[in-house]
Amino acid sequence: LRRIKASGLKLQLCTNETQATRENFVRKLRAMGFEVSVAEVTAPAPAACRLLRERGLRPHLLVHDDLVPEFAEIDKTNPNCVVLGDAAENFTYANLNEAFRLLIGMEKPVLISLGKGRYYKETDGLKLDVGAYMKALEYACDVQAEVVGKPAKRFFESALAELGVPPEQAIMIGDDIVSDVGGAQQCGMRALQVRTGKFR
Amino acid sequence: LRRIKASGLKLQLCTNETQATRENFVRKLRAMGFEVSVAEVTAPAPAACRLLRERGLRPHLLVHDDLVPEFAEIDKTNPNCVVLGDAAENFTYANLNEAFRLLIGMEKPVLISLGKGRYYKETDGLKLDVGAYMKALEYACDVQAEVVGKPAKRFFESALAELGVPPEQAIMIGDDIVSDVGGAQQCGMRALQVRTGKFR
Repeated sequence: LRRIKASGLKLQLCTNETQATRENFVRKLRAMGFEVSVAEVTAPAPAACRLLRERGLRPHLLVHDDLVPEFAEIDKTNPNCVVLGDAAENFTYANLNEAFRLLIGMEKPVLISLGKGRYYKETDGLKLDVGAYMKALEYACDVQAEVVGKPAKRFFESALAELGVPPEQAIMIGDDIVSDVGGAQQCGMRALQVRTGKFR
Repeated sequence: LRRIKASGLKLQLCTNETQATRENFVRKLRAMGFEVSVAEVTAPAPAACRLLRERGLRPHLLVHDDLVPEFAEIDKTNPNCVVLGDAAENFTYANLNEAFRLLIGMEKPVLISLGKGRYYKETDGLKLDVGAYMKALEYACDVQAEVVGKPAKRFFESALAELGVPPEQAIMIGDDIVSDVGGAQQCGMRALQVRTGKFR
Protein backbone atom coordinates (compact mmCIF):
# COMPACT_ATOMS: atom_id res chain seq x y z
CA LEU A 1 0.00 0.00 0.00
CA ARG A 2 2.80 2.36 0.97
CA ARG A 3 4.69 1.61 -2.25
CA ILE A 4 1.60 2.20 -4.40
CA LYS A 5 1.00 5.53 -2.73
CA ALA A 6 4.69 6.53 -2.95
CA SER A 7 4.71 5.68 -6.68
CA GLY A 8 2.11 8.35 -7.33
CA LEU A 9 -0.55 5.90 -8.49
CA LYS A 10 -4.07 6.71 -7.37
CA LEU A 11 -5.68 4.28 -4.97
CA GLN A 12 -9.21 3.49 -3.85
CA LEU A 13 -10.11 0.66 -1.47
CA CYS A 14 -13.18 -1.19 -2.75
CA THR A 15 -14.63 -3.20 0.08
CA ASN A 16 -17.79 -5.21 0.52
CA GLU A 17 -17.24 -4.85 4.24
CA THR A 18 -20.69 -4.50 5.73
CA GLN A 19 -19.95 -5.41 9.31
CA ALA A 20 -18.87 -1.90 10.20
CA THR A 21 -19.21 1.74 9.17
CA ARG A 22 -16.46 3.13 6.93
CA GLU A 23 -15.19 5.07 9.94
CA ASN A 24 -14.72 1.90 11.97
CA PHE A 25 -13.28 0.06 8.99
CA VAL A 26 -10.65 2.77 8.51
CA ARG A 27 -9.92 2.86 12.24
CA LYS A 28 -9.23 -0.89 12.14
CA LEU A 29 -6.92 -0.55 9.15
CA ARG A 30 -5.05 2.36 10.72
CA ALA A 31 -4.57 0.37 13.92
CA MET A 32 -2.93 -2.28 11.73
CA GLY A 33 -0.57 0.34 10.33
CA PHE A 34 -2.31 1.15 7.02
CA GLU A 35 -2.43 4.87 6.26
CA VAL A 36 -5.91 5.22 4.77
CA SER A 37 -8.71 7.74 5.08
CA VAL A 38 -12.50 7.38 4.86
CA ALA A 39 -12.47 9.17 1.48
CA GLU A 40 -10.27 6.40 0.07
CA VAL A 41 -12.92 3.76 0.83
CA THR A 42 -15.79 2.77 -1.46
CA ALA A 43 -18.30 0.61 0.43
CA PRO A 44 -21.79 -0.77 -0.23
CA ALA A 45 -23.79 0.91 2.55
CA PRO A 46 -23.42 4.51 1.26
CA ALA A 47 -24.28 3.21 -2.23
CA ALA A 48 -27.41 1.59 -0.79
CA CYS A 49 -28.41 4.83 0.96
CA ARG A 50 -28.16 6.75 -2.33
CA LEU A 51 -30.37 4.15 -4.02
CA LEU A 52 -32.94 4.20 -1.17
CA ARG A 53 -33.19 7.99 -1.36
CA GLU A 54 -33.47 8.03 -5.15
CA ARG A 55 -36.38 5.61 -5.07
CA GLY A 56 -38.13 6.68 -1.88
CA LEU A 57 -37.56 3.28 -0.27
CA ARG A 58 -37.85 2.69 3.46
CA PRO A 59 -35.72 -0.30 4.44
CA HIS A 60 -36.08 -3.07 6.94
CA LEU A 61 -32.43 -3.72 7.81
CA LEU A 62 -31.02 -7.21 8.18
CA VAL A 63 -27.43 -6.12 8.72
CA HIS A 64 -24.67 -6.21 11.30
CA ASP A 65 -25.37 -4.05 14.38
CA ASP A 66 -22.21 -2.06 13.71
CA LEU A 67 -23.43 -1.05 10.23
CA VAL A 68 -26.73 0.47 11.38
CA PRO A 69 -25.25 4.00 11.87
CA GLU A 70 -24.64 4.23 8.09
CA PHE A 71 -28.44 4.26 7.72
CA ALA A 72 -29.07 6.84 10.47
CA GLU A 73 -30.51 9.44 8.08
CA ILE A 74 -32.82 7.00 6.32
CA ASP A 75 -36.54 6.69 7.13
CA LYS A 76 -37.13 3.13 8.27
CA THR A 77 -40.79 3.36 9.31
CA ASN A 78 -43.33 1.10 7.60
CA PRO A 79 -40.71 -0.67 5.45
CA ASN A 80 -41.25 -1.21 1.74
CA CYS A 81 -37.98 -3.06 1.05
CA VAL A 82 -35.39 -5.22 2.79
CA VAL A 83 -31.70 -4.33 2.88
CA LEU A 84 -29.46 -7.33 3.45
CA GLY A 85 -25.84 -7.15 4.56
CA ASP A 86 -23.43 -9.58 6.15
CA ALA A 87 -25.40 -9.69 9.38
CA ALA A 88 -23.20 -12.44 10.92
CA GLU A 89 -24.64 -13.30 14.34
CA ASN A 90 -27.80 -11.42 13.34
CA PHE A 91 -28.47 -14.16 10.77
CA THR A 92 -30.76 -15.93 13.20
CA TYR A 93 -33.71 -18.13 12.26
CA ALA A 94 -36.08 -15.51 13.70
CA ASN A 95 -34.48 -12.58 11.84
CA LEU A 96 -34.44 -14.46 8.53
CA ASN A 97 -38.11 -15.37 8.94
CA GLU A 98 -38.93 -11.75 9.76
CA ALA A 99 -37.20 -10.42 6.64
CA PHE A 100 -38.87 -13.15 4.58
CA ARG A 101 -42.36 -12.31 5.91
CA LEU A 102 -41.92 -8.63 5.12
CA LEU A 103 -40.81 -9.43 1.57
CA ILE A 104 -43.49 -12.01 0.83
CA GLY A 105 -46.10 -9.59 2.17
CA MET A 106 -45.15 -6.90 -0.38
CA GLU A 107 -47.04 -6.60 -3.62
CA LYS A 108 -43.69 -6.44 -5.42
CA PRO A 109 -40.89 -7.51 -3.06
CA VAL A 110 -37.76 -5.34 -3.18
CA LEU A 111 -34.60 -6.96 -1.84
CA ILE A 112 -31.40 -4.92 -1.85
CA SER A 113 -28.22 -6.82 -1.06
CA LEU A 114 -24.97 -5.15 -0.04
CA GLY A 115 -23.00 -7.90 -1.76
CA LYS A 116 -23.25 -11.38 -3.13
CA GLY A 117 -20.08 -12.99 -1.80
CA ARG A 118 -20.32 -16.73 -1.21
CA TYR A 119 -18.06 -16.92 1.82
CA TYR A 120 -15.13 -15.29 3.53
CA LYS A 121 -12.40 -16.27 5.90
CA GLU A 122 -12.02 -15.22 9.51
CA THR A 123 -9.42 -16.30 12.02
CA ASP A 124 -11.74 -19.09 13.22
CA GLY A 125 -12.53 -20.38 9.72
CA LEU A 126 -14.67 -19.87 6.64
CA LYS A 127 -18.10 -18.31 7.03
CA LEU A 128 -21.15 -17.99 4.81
CA ASP A 129 -21.29 -14.53 3.29
CA VAL A 130 -24.32 -12.37 2.51
CA GLY A 131 -24.73 -13.92 -0.95
CA ALA A 132 -25.81 -17.24 0.53
CA TYR A 133 -28.57 -15.60 2.58
CA MET A 134 -29.53 -13.49 -0.42
CA LYS A 135 -30.06 -16.69 -2.43
CA ALA A 136 -32.23 -18.12 0.36
CA LEU A 137 -34.53 -15.07 0.35
CA GLU A 138 -34.53 -14.84 -3.46
CA TYR A 139 -35.68 -18.44 -3.70
CA ALA A 140 -38.30 -18.20 -0.95
CA CYS A 141 -39.82 -15.00 -2.35
CA ASP A 142 -39.22 -15.72 -6.06
CA VAL A 143 -37.51 -12.36 -6.41
CA GLN A 144 -34.17 -11.15 -7.78
CA ALA A 145 -32.08 -9.09 -5.38
CA GLU A 146 -30.48 -5.83 -6.46
CA VAL A 147 -26.81 -6.00 -5.51
CA VAL A 148 -25.19 -2.68 -4.66
CA GLY A 149 -21.73 -3.88 -3.52
CA LYS A 150 -19.14 -5.70 -5.59
CA PRO A 151 -19.53 -7.09 -8.28
CA ALA A 152 -22.18 -4.53 -9.29
CA LYS A 153 -21.02 -2.39 -12.21
CA ARG A 154 -22.35 0.75 -10.54
CA PHE A 155 -20.15 0.08 -7.52
CA PHE A 156 -16.94 0.05 -9.55
CA GLU A 157 -18.08 3.05 -11.58
CA SER A 158 -18.56 4.97 -8.37
CA ALA A 159 -15.03 4.06 -7.21
CA LEU A 160 -13.58 5.13 -10.59
CA ALA A 161 -15.48 8.41 -10.38
CA GLU A 162 -13.95 9.10 -6.98
CA LEU A 163 -10.50 8.45 -8.48
CA GLY A 164 -11.25 10.45 -11.63
CA VAL A 165 -9.79 7.62 -13.72
CA PRO A 166 -11.32 5.81 -16.73
CA PRO A 167 -11.71 2.01 -16.39
CA GLU A 168 -9.06 1.17 -18.97
CA GLN A 169 -6.43 2.98 -16.87
CA ALA A 170 -7.33 1.13 -13.67
CA ILE A 171 -6.55 -2.30 -12.30
CA MET A 172 -8.54 -4.07 -9.58
CA ILE A 173 -6.66 -6.30 -7.15
CA GLY A 174 -8.58 -8.78 -5.01
CA ASP A 175 -8.89 -12.35 -3.75
CA ASP A 176 -12.44 -13.05 -4.98
CA ILE A 177 -12.79 -14.25 -8.56
CA VAL A 178 -16.45 -13.15 -8.84
CA SER A 179 -16.82 -10.05 -6.65
CA ASP A 180 -13.41 -8.51 -7.34
CA VAL A 181 -12.09 -9.83 -10.64
CA GLY A 182 -15.35 -10.51 -12.47
CA GLY A 183 -17.01 -7.30 -11.36
CA ALA A 184 -14.06 -5.14 -12.40
CA GLN A 185 -13.78 -6.85 -15.80
CA GLN A 186 -17.51 -6.30 -16.42
CA CYS A 187 -16.77 -2.64 -15.91
CA GLY A 188 -13.92 -2.54 -18.46
CA MET A 189 -11.08 -2.66 -15.94
CA ARG A 190 -8.26 -5.14 -15.83
CA ALA A 191 -8.10 -7.28 -12.70
CA LEU A 192 -5.63 -9.36 -10.77
CA GLN A 193 -6.47 -12.14 -8.34
CA VAL A 194 -4.16 -12.56 -5.36
CA ARG A 195 -3.72 -15.99 -3.82
CA THR A 196 -4.12 -14.76 -0.28
CA GLY A 197 -7.11 -14.25 2.00
CA LYS A 198 -9.88 -16.68 1.19
CA PHE A 199 -8.21 -17.95 -1.99
CA ARG A 200 -8.30 -21.73 -2.02
CA LEU B 1 -59.90 -38.88 4.81
CA ARG B 2 -62.61 -41.10 6.32
CA ARG B 3 -64.71 -40.84 3.14
CA ILE B 4 -61.75 -41.72 0.91
CA LYS B 5 -61.00 -44.76 3.04
CA ALA B 6 -64.68 -45.80 3.18
CA SER B 7 -64.97 -45.52 -0.61
CA GLY B 8 -62.38 -48.28 -1.03
CA LEU B 9 -59.81 -46.01 -2.70
CA LYS B 10 -56.23 -46.62 -1.69
CA LEU B 11 -54.49 -43.84 0.21
CA GLN B 12 -50.91 -42.88 0.97
CA LEU B 13 -49.91 -39.72 2.82
CA CYS B 14 -46.94 -38.06 1.09
CA THR B 15 -45.33 -35.65 3.49
CA ASN B 16 -42.18 -33.58 3.42
CA GLU B 17 -42.49 -33.38 7.19
CA THR B 18 -38.94 -33.50 8.49
CA GLN B 19 -39.49 -32.03 11.92
CA ALA B 20 -40.49 -35.38 13.41
CA THR B 21 -40.16 -39.12 12.94
CA ARG B 22 -43.03 -40.84 11.11
CA GLU B 23 -44.10 -42.32 14.45
CA ASN B 24 -44.49 -38.87 15.98
CA PHE B 25 -46.11 -37.52 12.86
CA VAL B 26 -48.75 -40.29 12.96
CA ARG B 27 -49.24 -39.80 16.69
CA LYS B 28 -49.97 -36.12 16.09
CA LEU B 29 -52.46 -36.91 13.32
CA ARG B 30 -54.20 -39.56 15.42
CA ALA B 31 -54.50 -37.11 18.31
CA MET B 32 -56.31 -34.82 15.86
CA GLY B 33 -58.70 -37.63 15.01
CA PHE B 34 -57.17 -38.92 11.77
CA GLU B 35 -57.06 -42.72 11.56
CA VAL B 36 -53.67 -43.29 9.94
CA SER B 37 -50.82 -45.73 10.45
CA VAL B 38 -47.04 -45.40 9.94
CA ALA B 39 -47.28 -47.69 6.88
CA GLU B 40 -49.57 -45.16 5.21
CA VAL B 41 -46.92 -42.43 5.40
CA THR B 42 -44.20 -41.79 2.81
CA ALA B 43 -41.61 -39.36 4.19
CA PRO B 44 -38.18 -38.06 3.12
CA ALA B 45 -36.00 -39.32 5.99
CA PRO B 46 -36.42 -43.06 5.28
CA ALA B 47 -35.79 -42.31 1.60
CA ALA B 48 -32.58 -40.51 2.56
CA CYS B 49 -31.47 -43.45 4.72
CA ARG B 50 -31.89 -45.84 1.78
CA LEU B 51 -29.81 -43.52 -0.41
CA LEU B 52 -27.08 -43.14 2.25
CA ARG B 53 -26.80 -46.92 2.62
CA GLU B 54 -26.75 -47.53 -1.14
CA ARG B 55 -23.86 -45.12 -1.62
CA GLY B 56 -21.93 -45.71 1.59
CA LEU B 57 -22.43 -42.11 2.71
CA ARG B 58 -21.91 -40.97 6.30
CA PRO B 59 -23.99 -37.85 6.93
CA HIS B 60 -23.50 -34.75 8.97
CA LEU B 61 -27.09 -33.96 9.95
CA LEU B 62 -28.51 -30.45 9.86
CA VAL B 63 -32.04 -31.43 10.78
CA HIS B 64 -34.65 -30.94 13.49
CA ASP B 65 -33.74 -32.62 16.79
CA ASP B 66 -36.92 -34.68 16.64
CA LEU B 67 -35.90 -36.20 13.28
CA VAL B 68 -32.54 -37.54 14.45
CA PRO B 69 -33.96 -40.95 15.55
CA GLU B 70 -34.80 -41.75 11.90
CA PHE B 71 -31.02 -41.85 11.30
CA ALA B 72 -30.21 -43.99 14.36
CA GLU B 73 -28.89 -46.92 12.31
CA ILE B 74 -26.71 -44.76 10.05
CA ASP B 75 -22.96 -44.36 10.59
CA LYS B 76 -22.33 -40.67 11.13
CA THR B 77 -18.62 -40.75 11.98
CA ASN B 78 -16.20 -38.79 9.78
CA PRO B 79 -18.96 -37.36 7.56
CA ASN B 80 -18.65 -37.38 3.78
CA CYS B 81 -21.96 -35.66 3.04
CA VAL B 82 -24.46 -33.25 4.58
CA VAL B 83 -28.15 -34.10 5.03
CA LEU B 84 -30.35 -31.05 5.27
CA GLY B 85 -33.90 -31.04 6.63
CA ASP B 86 -36.23 -28.39 7.97
CA ALA B 87 -34.07 -27.81 11.01
CA ALA B 88 -36.19 -24.85 12.25
CA GLU B 89 -34.54 -23.48 15.41
CA ASN B 90 -31.43 -25.50 14.51
CA PHE B 91 -30.92 -23.19 11.52
CA THR B 92 -28.50 -21.08 13.52
CA TYR B 93 -25.63 -19.06 12.08
CA ALA B 94 -23.16 -21.44 13.75
CA ASN B 95 -24.86 -24.61 12.45
CA LEU B 96 -25.11 -23.24 8.92
CA ASN B 97 -21.42 -22.31 8.95
CA GLU B 98 -20.53 -25.76 10.26
CA ALA B 99 -22.44 -27.54 7.48
CA PHE B 100 -20.92 -25.15 4.94
CA ARG B 101 -17.36 -25.79 6.15
CA LEU B 102 -17.82 -29.54 5.97
CA LEU B 103 -19.14 -29.30 2.41
CA ILE B 104 -16.52 -26.87 1.13
CA GLY B 105 -13.83 -29.08 2.65
CA MET B 106 -14.93 -32.11 0.60
CA GLU B 107 -13.24 -32.90 -2.68
CA LYS B 108 -16.69 -33.32 -4.23
CA PRO B 109 -19.35 -31.88 -1.89
CA VAL B 110 -22.47 -34.05 -1.48
CA LEU B 111 -25.54 -32.23 -0.20
CA ILE B 112 -28.73 -34.23 0.28
CA SER B 113 -31.86 -32.23 0.98
CA LEU B 114 -35.04 -33.71 2.43
CA GLY B 115 -37.12 -31.26 0.43
CA LYS B 116 -36.96 -28.01 -1.45
CA GLY B 117 -40.06 -26.20 -0.18
CA ARG B 118 -39.81 -22.43 -0.20
CA TYR B 119 -41.86 -21.76 2.91
CA TYR B 120 -44.69 -23.09 5.02
CA LYS B 121 -47.29 -21.75 7.38
CA GLU B 122 -47.44 -22.25 11.12
CA THR B 123 -49.89 -20.80 13.59
CA ASP B 124 -47.52 -17.85 14.20
CA GLY B 125 -46.95 -17.12 10.52
CA LEU B 126 -44.99 -18.08 7.42
CA LYS B 127 -41.53 -19.60 7.84
CA LEU B 128 -38.63 -20.26 5.51
CA ASP B 129 -38.56 -23.92 4.53
CA VAL B 130 -35.58 -26.19 3.90
CA GLY B 131 -35.38 -25.18 0.22
CA ALA B 132 -34.23 -21.67 1.12
CA TYR B 133 -31.34 -23.00 3.22
CA MET B 134 -30.56 -25.55 0.51
CA LYS B 135 -30.16 -22.68 -1.98
CA ALA B 136 -27.84 -20.86 0.44
CA LEU B 137 -25.52 -23.88 0.74
CA GLU B 138 -25.75 -24.68 -2.98
CA TYR B 139 -24.64 -21.16 -3.83
CA ALA B 140 -21.86 -21.01 -1.25
CA CYS B 141 -20.41 -24.39 -2.24
CA ASP B 142 -21.23 -24.23 -5.97
CA VAL B 143 -22.96 -27.61 -5.70
CA GLN B 144 -26.36 -28.99 -6.68
CA ALA B 145 -28.29 -30.64 -3.86
CA GLU B 146 -29.93 -34.04 -4.34
CA VAL B 147 -33.53 -33.71 -3.20
CA VAL B 148 -35.08 -36.86 -1.75
CA GLY B 149 -38.48 -35.52 -0.61
CA LYS B 150 -41.21 -34.04 -2.77
CA PRO B 151 -41.01 -33.07 -5.67
CA ALA B 152 -38.40 -35.77 -6.44
CA LYS B 153 -39.72 -38.31 -8.92
CA ARG B 154 -38.25 -41.15 -6.87
CA PHE B 155 -40.25 -40.05 -3.85
CA PHE B 156 -43.60 -40.33 -5.65
CA GLU B 157 -42.55 -43.60 -7.28
CA SER B 158 -41.85 -45.00 -3.85
CA ALA B 159 -45.32 -43.93 -2.62
CA LEU B 160 -46.95 -45.51 -5.70
CA ALA B 161 -45.00 -48.72 -5.13
CA GLU B 162 -46.30 -48.88 -1.57
CA LEU B 163 -49.84 -48.47 -2.93
CA GLY B 164 -49.28 -50.94 -5.78
CA VAL B 165 -50.89 -48.46 -8.19
CA PRO B 166 -49.57 -47.11 -11.53
CA PRO B 167 -49.21 -43.32 -11.79
CA GLU B 168 -52.05 -42.89 -14.30
CA GLN B 169 -54.49 -44.36 -11.79
CA ALA B 170 -53.43 -42.04 -8.95
CA ILE B 171 -54.16 -38.46 -8.07
CA MET B 172 -52.04 -36.27 -5.79
CA ILE B 173 -53.79 -33.70 -3.60
CA GLY B 174 -51.76 -30.92 -1.99
CA ASP B 175 -51.42 -27.20 -1.32
CA ASP B 176 -47.96 -26.68 -2.87
CA ILE B 177 -47.83 -26.05 -6.59
CA VAL B 178 -44.20 -27.19 -6.94
CA SER B 179 -43.65 -29.91 -4.34
CA ASP B 180 -47.09 -31.54 -4.56
CA VAL B 181 -48.62 -30.74 -7.93
CA GLY B 182 -45.48 -30.34 -10.05
CA GLY B 183 -43.72 -33.35 -8.57
CA ALA B 184 -46.71 -35.65 -9.08
CA GLN B 185 -47.22 -34.48 -12.66
CA GLN B 186 -43.53 -35.11 -13.45
CA CYS B 187 -44.20 -38.64 -12.33
CA GLY B 188 -47.19 -39.14 -14.65
CA MET B 189 -49.88 -38.64 -12.00
CA ARG B 190 -52.71 -36.18 -12.10
CA ALA B 191 -52.70 -33.59 -9.32
CA LEU B 192 -55.08 -31.25 -7.57
CA GLN B 193 -54.10 -28.11 -5.67
CA VAL B 194 -56.24 -27.25 -2.65
CA ARG B 195 -56.64 -23.63 -1.63
CA THR B 196 -56.00 -24.31 2.03
CA GLY B 197 -52.87 -24.45 4.17
CA LYS B 198 -50.18 -22.17 2.81
CA PHE B 199 -52.06 -21.38 -0.40
CA ARG B 200 -51.98 -17.64 -1.00
